[in-house]
Amino acid sequence: MQLLSCPGFAAAGLAAGIKKNGRKDLGLIFCERPAAVAGLFTRNRVQAAPVRLDRERIPRGRCRAVIVNSGNANCCTGEEGDRRARRMARAAAQALGVAEEEVLVASTGVIGEPLPIDCIEQAAPALAAALRPEGIADFAEAILTTDRVPKGVSVERETASGRFRLTGVVKGAGMIRPDLATLLCFLLTDLAAEAEALRPLLAEGAARSFNRITVDGDTSTNDTVLLLASGASGVGLAAPGVREAFREALGEVMERLARWVVRDAEGSNKVVDIVVRGAASEADARRIAEAVAHSPLVKTALFGEDANWGRILAAAGRSGAEFDPAAVNLYVGPVQIVAGGAGCGKEAEAAATEVLRAEAFPIVIELGRGPGTASLVTCDLSIDYVKINADYRS
Amino acid sequence: MQLLSCPGFAAAGLAAGIKKNGRKDLGLIFCERPAAVAGLFTRNRVQAAPVRLDRERIPRGRCRAVIVNSGNANCCTGEEGDRRARRMARAAAQALGVAEEEVLVASTGVIGEPLPIDCIEQAAPALAAALRPEGIADFAEAILTTDRVPKGVSVERETASGRFRLTGVVKGAGMIRPDLATLLCFLLTDLAAEAEALRPLLAEGAARSFNRITVDGDTSTNDTVLLLASGASGVGLAAPGVREAFREALGEVMERLARWVVRDAEGSNKVVDIVVRGAASEADARRIAEAVAHSPLVKTALFGEDANWGRILAAAGRSGAEFDPAAVNLYVGPVQIVAGGAGCGKEAEAAATEVLRAEAFPIVIELGRGPGTASLVTCDLSIDYVKINADYRS
Repeated sequence: MQLLSCPGFAAAGLAAGIKKNGRKDLGLIFCERPAAVAGLFTRNRVQAAPVRLDRERIPRGRCRAVIVNSGNANCCTGEEGDRRARRMARAAAQALGVAEEEVLVASTGVIGEPLPIDCIEQAAPALAAALRPEGIADFAEAILTTDRVPKGVSVERETASGRFRLTGVVKGAGMIRPDLATLLCFLLTDLAAEAEALRPLLAEGAARSFNRITVDGDTSTNDTVLLLASGASGVGLAAPGVREAFREALGEVMERLARWVVRDAEGSNKVVDIVVRGAASEADARRIAEAVAHSPLVKTALFGEDANWGRILAAAGRSGAEFDPAAVNLYVGPVQIVAGGAGCGKEAEAAATEVLRAEAFPIVIELGRGPGTASLVTCDLSIDYVKINADYRS
Repeated sequence: MQLLSCPGFAAAGLAAGIKKNGRKDLGLIFCERPAAVAGLFTRNRVQAAPVRLDRERIPRGRCRAVIVNSGNANCCTGEEGDRRARRMARAAAQALGVAEEEVLVASTGVIGEPLPIDCIEQAAPALAAALRPEGIADFAEAILTTDRVPKGVSVERETASGRFRLTGVVKGAGMIRPDLATLLCFLLTDLAAEAEALRPLLAEGAARSFNRITVDGDTSTNDTVLLLASGASGVGLAAPGVREAFREALGEVMERLARWVVRDAEGSNKVVDIVVRGAASEADARRIAEAVAHSPLVKTALFGEDANWGRILAAAGRSGAEFDPAAVNLYVGPVQIVAGGAGCGKEAEAAATEVLRAEAFPIVIELGRGPGTASLVTCDLSIDYVKINADYRS
């Protein structure tokens, strides 16, 4: 992970005692001056208390700090959960000497257990004291649950109007599907921008990244993506050449983080692009990509490195999309294994099996029916996925 | 398995060499006189050659024999696949001395490999020679793929118009979802009936059974359910009291077979009824039941015997159904673990965990919003499911 600090922000992460294993579980991002902020949240009807609190506060468009815990989702915790989300924000506000309403919160972990707010309140002063620009690495660690590694990406861009930086960190390993993949993601830039200008760019970035990945088709109650702009670079988003450069940088960072989520997903061994071309419509292409990307039979075959293309066709066939099975071509990486709906034989399958041994490759489904295209990023379904999720709370 | 032969039918099953492990893989049902027949087939857009052939032949409403192989699905095999499906029917017709058009076929197994038709043609005479009424048990064995046990149910009913029998056998262990669960099912009765009268009864029985179970949300290209009536009892479906008794018997047999499919599913250890009550509409209830019944996170928690109700609520929340999370009650068996959207505490969870140790139990989700109800039968997602499906073809 090559993670750069972002001017205008300091961060920290420590172990507050929420996780039983003694790992870091509380993180803080501090904005030296009020930052512009845009956010995206889960579309799940069941929403965690911190999501409800952020939704209330984010229309202000500015914030001073974000406090995040892992190990407990503070979800399905009733009104007491809402009170504790507020207390969590207040603890950060008091430690930092900023207004409570300018603090956003996020939580991730087990659903339905009371948030151990005492740990958080006790740790808040130490957390604030630990703030430093490079603390973003500790922060990235503190937000993890079943993730195997901390995940962060930084880019710098030179524009006609000056240089800016963008640093993003993400957590997410299970409960991932395209409807804003389940995760927490924090994106920091030193550009100067208004919240209104950030919002559409964030939405566009999500469409190209977190809305295109799937691990298990489940969505979380806690999904939160925040983009904060400190203005510390002195470069304005509205200055010549900046907006385009930032859109491109944001898309790149979010896409890299999203792919990393799939690579680091629970039990994941493969990152597989499911690409559908030639569908009757974009909606049909998406239907097929989703059916294939979520199919347990396709995903277990990927785990087994088995070029079982019949399962891919069967998943496409139940997707509801219109197509002629006798016109389908299928490729695993560069290897064609189905032509006109029928297998290309043992030699092609052997070549495809070689491709399946790689860690990342595309599966391309060509329907020859129309202009519709879609693609999703998925992973295999492994024994470890089951083990991790059967034992998650024990 | 307590399986009774059905008057008017003989059956057989033997190893023809299609399966590499030497197990039975070819089955035959012979109707002594032309039987009335009704059928249901996969709604997957990718349809196997035997399904296409049966769809062509079944409108006649009568048949003399059904020949079935396991170990190869004869699907995505192009026009040669269609020719081999016809040759398979012809082999049975010649061995039995009946018209080719009066023979139906079914195949199940690997998709995309050429059907080993030579094995089938060679074995057909021996298969015909082995026919006997009690051969239905061998037949039930010959149609299995990854099933752990042969599955069959027989009932007898006494009506004012006389006695009749109904015997059903089923195979199916993976690629199971409600859209006509993936399987082959053959139902034999000695009633006298017209095909037109059988069709709606079969559809109704499926709605109550195979359209209500799920293992992995995948559907097959080969699903086939056939109901054959020999008339050997001399009791007519139209006679007083018979139709109702038969509808009830058919519903019972199909439901028992469907539950058995879930119990015997790949890697399955639990049979769990997902019951939704109080939804805004029946469609919403069904949406929630499907989201919960298919959720890998719910299913791995069932495998882990973990009362992780947060995952159930999260799955319901992403289903698209309208409901107020703060009004949800949740029960595992008789134990309430969520009241008004929040957990009932450690004691309730401990009691629920006890229930989860059982082999079968219901999970009831009450939404308190309207009259909508729905229920599905699902199973856990286990390490063995992954193992079985990662290694299926090797």
